[in-house]
Amino acid sequence: METATAFDRFRDGYEERDWDDGADGTVRIALVGLGWFARDEALPAIADCDYADVTATISGSAEKARTVADEAGADTALTYERFHDGEGSDAYDAVYVATPNARHLEYVETAAELGKDVICEKPMEATVERAEAMVDACEAAGVTLMVAYRMQADPVMRRVRELVADGFVGDVAQAGGTFAFPMFANEDADPDQWRLDPDLAGGGSLYDIGVYPLNTLRFVLDADPTSVQGSLTSPDERFDGPVIDEHAAFLLEFDGGVQALCRSSYGSHGESSLRIDGNEGAITVENAFSPRGERTVVLERDGRRSRHEGLGSNELTEQFDYFAYCRLTGRTPTADGEHGLVDMQALDGIQTAAAGGRRVDLD
Amino acid sequence: METATAFDRFRDGYEERDWDDGADGTVRIALVGLGWFARDEALPAIADCDYADVTATISGSAEKARTVADEAGADTALTYERFHDGEGSDAYDAVYVATPNARHLEYVETAAELGKDVICEKPMEATVERAEAMVDACEAAGVTLMVAYRMQADPVMRRVRELVADGFVGDVAQAGGTFAFPMFANEDADPDQWRLDPDLAGGGSLYDIGVYPLNTLRFVLDADPTSVQGSLTSPDERFDGPVIDEHAAFLLEFDGGVQALCRSSYGSHGESSLRIDGNEGAITVENAFSPRGERTVVLERDGRRSRHEGLGSNELTEQFDYFAYCRLTGRTPTADGEHGLVDMQALDGIQTAAAGGRRVDLD
Repeated sequence: METATAFDRFRDGYEERDWDDGADGTVRIALVGLGWFARDEALPAIADCDYADVTATISGSAEKARTVADEAGADTALTYERFHDGEGSDAYDAVYVATPNARHLEYVETAAELGKDVICEKPMEATVERAEAMVDACEAAGVTLMVAYRMQADPVMRRVRELVADGFVGDVAQAGGTFAFPMFANEDADPDQWRLDPDLAGGGSLYDIGVYPLNTLRFVLDADPTSVQGSLTSPDERFDGPVIDEHAAFLLEFDGGVQALCRSSYGSHGESSLRIDGNEGAITVENAFSPRGERTVVLERDGRRSRHEGLGSNELTEQFDYFAYCRLTGRTPTADGEHGLVDMQALDGIQTAAAGGRRVDLD
Repeated sequence: METATAFDRFRDGYEERDWDDGADGTVRIALVGLGWFARDEALPAIADCDYADVTATISGSAEKARTVADEAGADTALTYERFHDGEGSDAYDAVYVATPNARHLEYVETAAELGKDVICEKPMEATVERAEAMVDACEAAGVTLMVAYRMQADPVMRRVRELVADGFVGDVAQAGGTFAFPMFANEDADPDQWRLDPDLAGGGSLYDIGVYPLNTLRFVLDADPTSVQGSLTSPDERFDGPVIDEHAAFLLEFDGGVQALCRSSYGSHGESSLRIDGNEGAITVENAFSPRGERTVVLERDGRRSRHEGLGSNELTEQFDYFAYCRLTGRTPTADGEHGLVDMQALDGIQTAAAGGRRVDLD
């Protein structure tokens, strides 16, 4: 590809939705699980959507459901129990599941039984088996299941993927990604949160944030890992290692031979980055995985280097609009259940590899 | 430590030699092996030394030895044969061995027999066994053996090590390093060079340049790896994989629990970097391993970030002066033979791990 053209792409029009050729209507979404991410990130993001609207809120607490429904301007507020009983299900077309990982399946199953399409937070579930059951439930009911990999809707990552496909870096050889932050540097961090409970989370930093470099590399490289190796450690006793890893480092081999080095951490200095190296160039994304953009992209090729700062938009708005657009136009979202299962197998494989000291080959 | 002080350290006086409290005299060095690195990098670096001087040159070709001796202003030029016979050995006090990896041992053995101290290029040899024989030969003869890890003499890396020891990043959790360049992007690159011959090199990019992040992390963290995992690939047929890896990716676990992700490549985009992450801060070195400095150091801590460009000096001059200083003052160099053996075991372990798909524990 023309190097100059590629360099220009991060200045001009990269935010245009390459997937959106218009749709009629609005998808009414029920939020299931009202933790900080659903409330502080997803809710305002959906408020800005063209094709999606929050019309119901569902929580363990009737009071919390009501409070958030009022914030969202939604008429329907339900407890989990009433949701499972199918009450008020005329008020929404689809559900967004943002409960603790090990409680995704039960809400997806109910949604499927009610004939509602589903967008489910990552990682899909706490175990491969439960994630498979989720896929089966949605298939049996004929509803759509999309996994909420927000980076796949991020305009910066979509443009990076396009550059890689167009050969900007030549043949991709090596890649890597990091998502790390020191959880307890925030004094409000709760040591009893579900993310630190092996039964509810399924894994530690690896499952919660290591899945970002894993899945985003799959997306950007348009390839799946064929094997994994890894190391999981938890020097800080607040992390219930080895299941709840404080630090994860893992090495992926991808279909086509690309090697990728990734890490996640709840205990090391804040860092969020992605890098793709080929025989002709490199692409680096800084601040790669934080919500609401502000990414920096560095392009290198032919002895030239260009740095593009302050890129991106609210990729959650993009994600929910993409999900709704797919429903309105009868399309299957790219990040469907089968796609999500590959990550679950890789995450589980990294745990097995780290524990046993052996490379795990993926199917 | 005081954050402000640490930030200042990369502006003020970091180039001062922390090891040099003065020495009398000059060590006369014989260059053994006159490839481009010895000739274009080592020779001019030694010309700038306070304590070292090149007084002899030794090559397979008498003509080449003579030409380089003239360039260096050295009186003595020898063939390998005459060197092995001990001819002209009054003209030098120590030897610098820069032959192909698998030919280090024979010249070190002769130097030891002649009672000469040795500085030997990295990696020490092509196999662990031959590196062990080298250590044994020097010990038996009572001569000093130093491995030429030039980054350990680099004033930037020495200051980074000091910052880490002083707790600038807090408890180190994760680290990483990369040394990569596309060998055949240089049209003059010789596909028949010894670096691509399994018998002469012992390994590919891993042995030649992967040893930089490996050894420099050991130096900066003041810790040794306890286990290795890895992946070695050679999609380009000019690399005689798996021994001569084009691309290497490896995961180290260090004494004390630090995880490190490293890569080397002869086929991906140019990159040379080191990163140390702790629970309180991070240090990044860009252009970390190129000869003659021009490094950038980025310090992050307490929400502050400072970037220091254009740092460093000729670390080869520093290295040869340090070697000579140790000889003149009766000190043992830090990077001695036993130190070098740890890298040889790690490199060999990475090859074994990559081939067998299992983690290799190091002694």
